[in-house]
Amino acid sequence: MLTGKNYIGNSLSANGIKTFRTFDPKENTENEQVFYEASSDEINQATELAHQAFQVYRTIESSKKSKFLNAIADEILALGDDLVNLVMQEAGFTYERVVGERARTLWQLQMFADLLDEGSWVDATIDTAQLYRKPNPKPDLRKMLIPVGPVVVFGASNFPLAYSTAGGDTVAALAAGCPVIVKSHPMHAGVSELVASAIIKAAQKTGMPNGVFSNLNSSGIEVGIQLVKHPFVKAVGFTGSINGGRALFNLANQRPEPIPVFAEMGSINPVILLPKALQKRNEEIAKIYAQSITLGSGQFCTNPGLILGIKSKELDSFTNYLSDEILLMKPGCMLHPTIVDNFETNKEKMRQQENIATIASYENGVNKNDGRPLILTVDGTTFLKNPQLHQEVFGPFSMLVQCESIGELKTIISQLEGQLTGTIIAEEEELLIHSNIVEALQNRVGRLIFNGVPTGVEVCPSMQHGGPYPASTDSRFTAVGIHSIKRWVRPFTYQNWPNELLPKALQDENPQKIIRLINNQLSDSAI
Amino acid sequence: MLTGKNYIGNSLSANGIKTFRTFDPKENTENEQVFYEASSDEINQATELAHQAFQVYRTIESSKKSKFLNAIADEILALGDDLVNLVMQEAGFTYERVVGERARTLWQLQMFADLLDEGSWVDATIDTAQLYRKPNPKPDLRKMLIPVGPVVVFGASNFPLAYSTAGGDTVAALAAGCPVIVKSHPMHAGVSELVASAIIKAAQKTGMPNGVFSNLNSSGIEVGIQLVKHPFVKAVGFTGSINGGRALFNLANQRPEPIPVFAEMGSINPVILLPKALQKRNEEIAKIYAQSITLGSGQFCTNPGLILGIKSKELDSFTNYLSDEILLMKPGCMLHPTIVDNFETNKEKMRQQENIATIASYENGVNKNDGRPLILTVDGTTFLKNPQLHQEVFGPFSMLVQCESIGELKTIISQLEGQLTGTIIAEEEELLIHSNIVEALQNRVGRLIFNGVPTGVEVCPSMQHGGPYPASTDSRFTAVGIHSIKRWVRPFTYQNWPNELLPKALQDENPQKIIRLINNQLSDSAI
Repeated sequence: MLTGKNYIGNSLSANGIKTFRTFDPKENTENEQVFYEASSDEINQATELAHQAFQVYRTIESSKKSKFLNAIADEILALGDDLVNLVMQEAGFTYERVVGERARTLWQLQMFADLLDEGSWVDATIDTAQLYRKPNPKPDLRKMLIPVGPVVVFGASNFPLAYSTAGGDTVAALAAGCPVIVKSHPMHAGVSELVASAIIKAAQKTGMPNGVFSNLNSSGIEVGIQLVKHPFVKAVGFTGSINGGRALFNLANQRPEPIPVFAEMGSINPVILLPKALQKRNEEIAKIYAQSITLGSGQFCTNPGLILGIKSKELDSFTNYLSDEILLMKPGCMLHPTIVDNFETNKEKMRQQENIATIASYENGVNKNDGRPLILTVDGTTFLKNPQLHQEVFGPFSMLVQCESIGELKTIISQLEGQLTGTIIAEEEELLIHSNIVEALQNRVGRLIFNGVPTGVEVCPSMQHGGPYPASTDSRFTAVGIHSIKRWVRPFTYQNWPNELLPKALQDENPQKIIRLINNQLSDSAI
Repeated sequence: MLTGKNYIGNSLSANGIKTFRTFDPKENTENEQVFYEASSDEINQATELAHQAFQVYRTIESSKKSKFLNAIADEILALGDDLVNLVMQEAGFTYERVVGERARTLWQLQMFADLLDEGSWVDATIDTAQLYRKPNPKPDLRKMLIPVGPVVVFGASNFPLAYSTAGGDTVAALAAGCPVIVKSHPMHAGVSELVASAIIKAAQKTGMPNGVFSNLNSSGIEVGIQLVKHPFVKAVGFTGSINGGRALFNLANQRPEPIPVFAEMGSINPVILLPKALQKRNEEIAKIYAQSITLGSGQFCTNPGLILGIKSKELDSFTNYLSDEILLMKPGCMLHPTIVDNFETNKEKMRQQENIATIASYENGVNKNDGRPLILTVDGTTFLKNPQLHQEVFGPFSMLVQCESIGELKTIISQLEGQLTGTIIAEEEELLIHSNIVEALQNRVGRLIFNGVPTGVEVCPSMQHGGPYPASTDSRFTAVGIHSIKRWVRPFTYQNWPNELLPKALQDENPQKIIRLINNQLSDSAI
């Protein structure tokens, strides 16, 4: 079923000489299929095709684009257990995790299909002419969002389905009217080829132009670099490490024509334990956090990597509970031996910092590529002084910081790097008493959680997934939910344009019955 | 009345040793007032104050911020002819132009005050909890736009009021909840101080925190560089040259924490003359374009610097009409002798390119700093080959390109750099016949005009002022109209937050009666 080739638009291609294979972390062995890294020529062909396809695709009616997205969902589902098994083989996930992630991927496709069918997402804004206004007549102006052009999406290691080939970035870009070139994650080249085959089938069945989608293999950084530098590429979506995301961001901004890069990068997702909550719910909190820290072997961008509390006997007993709970967890397989190696190295680096103590370290016999959880602790003063302790350790890891006082806690929060999320575990009255803590945390995060865990990102319109740098490269956008489409569109105005030649969204008759801002009033009426 | 000092928040300060004076281009003489360039210490004080003020200002109710903006308008108006005369003295404008620009400035303040009073601009998005959802309960999620932090605004040379101290960038940032530090344009240091005094008065009268606004003098690039690099600064607004804007953009992206720069830069605003329109309305088109090219001495970013037509006898006679009309125009004073010098140098550079001919060159006796209009012409092949001919010549200048064919015209358009606007002069049926021309132009611009002129930017919700690079650094935003506020805000989500502690915009009761997206339906109801 797999070929190991690249999809250059609708065609399979393997002109390159560099090859690689993926790895089964559960079996601790290389998978059989050989993949052909995209050559420089193939990259140029894919971008040229995307550029040409854009001229057609951007003008295709919303209802047809919606059918395309739904068809992708159908084709992915039709891959059945071939796909599920391959994800397990390339990512070490459990069957349940893969099926869950596939459901999310299908839901995202359907959500954007619905958005296109409804149609109001283009933010149609109309100011009608005032021909007799003094001193000058006012022209007729009509604005809507239009696609920016071909988008390059980098597959994520930790979401081989939901944030990769047909994942959130891709579906938002396709919905916006942008062709997509995926640079698949080297760990998931097979999954990416399978999903790409589904997208290509869907594109052909629904009459989409050749080049609306391509899927390129790569094992190193060259393919990504050439893509981001290519003049036909107009935006980039990335999920991964700070180093990787920043490198792409720099590259894109150094182009003669800079382009936007939305990179969702590192986050340690601070959790603040306020005293009264600890007094009341010590054990319960420890239990849900042991689960959250180890969920998916800690390989989520919302993993709670930092817990902040104030020295007290309640914090001590929380520590004991957390230690017990962590040691009860069953470690799970990580994505790849290099991920496991990095996890072990980074844990060791943390352990060797000054004034660090261990709360819980899972050392029992585990399988070769399982992630062994580790919880460390440090005092607030040391944490403040040592930025090394603020680094993300990707995996089931968390650092508990024991502060001297609320004042020190606030100082630590306000000096934290930007984060995707911040969580406050508190009794309700403590939010008021410590409003300065809440405000300091709000300045550093994209999402604030009350008495919950940061893991488990709901895909819905009110989700913000992004935050101040380095959580993401541009806090003004989200990577999750319908509003993530805004990364790939720009406002465009028609002045005094003939009504019948305007896009439907802007025509007097409002044939799509969408909600529009007309002379500064929202309305779904005709003009 | 003027002191020549900087406003560091509410205090006048002049600790620096570098001084400079502004210039009266009409009188061709330096103005009397000496200005003190902001010192490094003063810059640090202003950013520290802005950082502190942000913690307070962002939590101040919309209705109070609205009063602040209206108070700024009142105080600017109260400056009366002192302000009008000073603008004339520092910019060489006519009285009418200054009064017109002041009206626009006041309108912008009022428009954003109204936006705050209405309140729906925060894009409140709510998904209510589903406690019994399987397999996991759905949390309550509520999202709204919040300010990014202190914003630095660079005053524009060509809009000393409407795009400077209390101009579009500043008012959008203040409305968003961001403190503003203005680096005033060196040509308009006096105007900036006067307007700053109005803003400070308004801030004090309406109880805004000290540091919500500062105004710094500078004659070189150092003050701007230090501001953009300062860690407390979270976004930048700039209107000016490509070189200046790109330098700031690069600087901001090289920071450890990159910040967004919205720079509205160069544009030659191509105008396409289609054959049938020329056959019918030759003379009329020439007349309105002679006016548009010379309006405000050509010192508008929407000045039509490029006219594209197809060789024909109608184009020849258009050329003759345009030549006659241009020579009938009365040249006006430009902003500054250096602007005049640059204009003369750039005109001369253009004239010396290969295959260039002159259509109209105003050489009659004019005042010292008047801008003498120039219209050149060149064939399409030469224009395609020589990117030097695509450069903006800031002033009353335009280049008429005579294409061999519609095919060549399309090639030229699709290879143009990004532009603020594109105009098509055509009979309606020509838009259909030449739809590929329209589509090619749409890809390169932010606003498409039918049978009009690009100058005269309406300030209204449906205006897009921005476009593909280098028209602006990020085509996904506008610099004009209510949506320009989106440059300075980021989405922020509360998860399971207690209702009474949420911002009003997100509370169940919807006390502000704003329009919100609740469970994916727009509504102004309570929950």
